[in-house]
Amino acid sequence: MRLSTVRLYDERGTAAARQEGDELVVLPYSDIGELLSSGDDWPERAAAEDGDRISLSTTSLAPVVPHPNKIVCLGLNYATHIKEMGRATPAHPTLFAKYDGSLVGAYDDVHIPPVSDDLDWEAELGVVIGHRARHVSPDQALSHVAGYTVLNDVTVRDWQHRTREFLSGKTFEATTPVGPSLVTPDELPRGASGLTISCLVDGTTMQKSNTADLLFDVAAIIAYVSTIITLLPGDLIATGTPGGVGAGRDPKVFLQPGQELVTVVEGIGELRNTVVKDRL
Amino acid sequence: MRLSTVRLYDERGTAAARQEGDELVVLPYSDIGELLSSGDDWPERAAAEDGDRISLSTTSLAPVVPHPNKIVCLGLNYATHIKEMGRATPAHPTLFAKYDGSLVGAYDDVHIPPVSDDLDWEAELGVVIGHRARHVSPDQALSHVAGYTVLNDVTVRDWQHRTREFLSGKTFEATTPVGPSLVTPDELPRGASGLTISCLVDGTTMQKSNTADLLFDVAAIIAYVSTIITLLPGDLIATGTPGGVGAGRDPKVFLQPGQELVTVVEGIGELRNTVVKDRL
Repeated sequence: MRLSTVRLYDERGTAAARQEGDELVVLPYSDIGELLSSGDDWPERAAAEDGDRISLSTTSLAPVVPHPNKIVCLGLNYATHIKEMGRATPAHPTLFAKYDGSLVGAYDDVHIPPVSDDLDWEAELGVVIGHRARHVSPDQALSHVAGYTVLNDVTVRDWQHRTREFLSGKTFEATTPVGPSLVTPDELPRGASGLTISCLVDGTTMQKSNTADLLFDVAAIIAYVSTIITLLPGDLIATGTPGGVGAGRDPKVFLQPGQELVTVVEGIGELRNTVVKDRL
Repeated sequence: MRLSTVRLYDERGTAAARQEGDELVVLPYSDIGELLSSGDDWPERAAAEDGDRISLSTTSLAPVVPHPNKIVCLGLNYATHIKEMGRATPAHPTLFAKYDGSLVGAYDDVHIPPVSDDLDWEAELGVVIGHRARHVSPDQALSHVAGYTVLNDVTVRDWQHRTREFLSGKTFEATTPVGPSLVTPDELPRGASGLTISCLVDGTTMQKSNTADLLFDVAAIIAYVSTIITLLPGDLIATGTPGGVGAGRDPKVFLQPGQELVTVVEGIGELRNTVVKDRL
């Protein structure tokens, strides 16, 4: 099952929707987050409920979960990226946060802020939580997944390194595309492992790796985070990026206004975003 | 005006309330976050609206804003704490996040997690946003403040330093008391500057400083964060802690089960929390 949050041009604003071929069936929830929070039987309801049908090709997509309670991001989770950033292999997952104001839809513009020109790409596998998780073991962890999505943890690189904390560079407004769909686990390999992940800028492949190369896999991440805090339905996990970011190149390369950023995870979907420059 | 979020033992769960002497007047909002998000005239409505009166002394307080869209925390923002942590004076604010599951009420227990015994205190001035702020100057910034509160950024110190990102040690479940009230700016010095801030453990003063010693003051913090992302009504800012934390002592001291943690900001209020140990 493929689920998206669609923009509606009426008082509802957005709605959850189920993909059926080249149509979307609008479901009675304001977004995928509300669907996932509506009770543990959400998969049955999401599969069965009927509603207005709209054409996929003419629909504007919101971030697949527009307002997660938590966005948990992993740093340094592919060996190739650890090497290009000059870091040692970590013994524990490196966690940082984003705020939901940084999220944009799968085909929305990605914004270079007025204060920087160092916008960099980070293609990532996204995980959305479907059932509350607290103190779960890696063996149990995947049963808490609602599904998988595609995310680009677009980073304002100079602000990321202004202090020792990543947050400032990771949560600029309207930088982080997520979507187009949440794909339920039954359509994918276990833990969404073994999928090609890639990032292209104006058609040139900048990152190409495989989710089997995650240092901490999806089950390990969920178990670890659930040791710290309760994961809730709709929570979004960004699992980290492979090598090939712009800041890891010599000379460094950053996104330019007008460029097209494409982020693909095999079997899940594709983000296609135009880069724009914001002025004050 | 002093506003709190109170726990009600009916279908409402919690409600916003206005303090009047030793009573609280229950307001028609589910919590202070909902009040602040209800429109820019919230101060007039919060002052005028009437409701059930309950005794302050018998009321259980929830976190003053239980579910902020953002919790933005400052690290290294008092010279004394920068020195004890062995860091250089930063040129820019060090920002990190917490998730709302870490928040507890002003008199709730604070939890040592099963996986660590290194729970440490960090008394802080809290700021709650009252009006949307994006690209505001330091001169304009204070007009976006709803009020001030008290917060203890209780930290699982060993997990904070497991990786280079603070988040893991800063967002353990039920560790961060915030309250008892939001105090509106008219009752305090400009920017809540010049207030004594202190932290006591079982009656012994562990931290004592003054909010005038903030390296980045409240106006500077709001202006800086609003450069990155839109601050929304109800957003909570933890402004950083002064010297005297347990990890800065020789030998290091951590909180023990049964201890009483008291956090005070002059003119704003006092948190009083018992430390408990969680077992799996």
